[in-house]
Amino acid sequence: MTALTLAKPDDLERLSRLVADCQTEQGLTQSEAERQAALAPLLEGAPHGAIYLIGPARAPIGYVAVSFGWSLALGGLDAVIDDLYIRASVRGRGIGAEILGSLPRALSAAGLKALHVRVDPDDSATLEFYTKALFSHNARPLLLTRRLRPPI
Amino acid sequence: MTALTLAKPDDLERLSRLVADCQTEQGLTQSEAERQAALAPLLEGAPHGAIYLIGPARAPIGYVAVSFGWSLALGGLDAVIDDLYIRASVRGRGIGAEILGSLPRALSAAGLKALHVRVDPDDSATLEFYTKALFSHNARPLLLTRRLRPPI
Repeated sequence: MTALTLAKPDDLERLSRLVADCQTEQGLTQSEAERQAALAPLLEGAPHGAIYLIGPARAPIGYVAVSFGWSLALGGLDAVIDDLYIRASVRGRGIGAEILGSLPRALSAAGLKALHVRVDPDDSATLEFYTKALFSHNARPLLLTRRLRPPI
Repeated sequence: MTALTLAKPDDLERLSRLVADCQTEQGLTQSEAERQAALAPLLEGAPHGAIYLIGPARAPIGYVAVSFGWSLALGGLDAVIDDLYIRASVRGRGIGAEILGSLPRALSAAGLKALHVRVDPDDSATLEFYTKALFSHNARPLLLTRRLRPPI
């Protein structure tokens, strides 16, 4: 069974390399300093999210980052999968599907009410990956975003 | 200008009445005990969300509930509008649009990177309401959810 280990401050550098690989695949560009600034608070225990290393904690083969939130309708904590990344060299072995079994169990045991993920509705492979893992949608809610800029 | 006031523990009962009205309009059923259990942690300062009363704090005409999260790509805190509710008797006066101006300013000043909202893509009136307030979407991400059940 593939281990999931909560990432700690000591994991920052090896985790940042994996996140950089994930971002390169997604076409995102973030400097090493920006990336570490985004990761460090979560590793230090900020309540807004958590990152789990996949596989051996000293030589992880991927990670899953979740962001925690609060839903009035669900009556408590929920979470969104922000990233689920598996190294390209070990894909296709069912590791992602295994994580989508163990992660909900762990979050459920911690009292969370629901786990969400955002998927491009045209990406049928990713949709199938998540629907096989018991994710579903009712009303096809679309996510709109307003970027915020700090006041000048 | 319509006031936005952070709801505190003393506001629980009057806020719960507004949330009940909102849920009735949405066809949601939640008992008074469940509703208060979902609201109380946020009023007591839980870091996962906040609720702002709209209008006079002692006689609010609505509320907006936001859930906080963490985005690696955005490099920090973001928020999702969980509910934005204005009493039916005072709708159509531009109060919601005004709140969609003042709320992002307040969250931006607090260092948040983005504000999101989930909208049914077939609900063109709500889509227009948010796009006028500078919300946009790129890839039409669809939200998939897996409800979590506590272990038996």
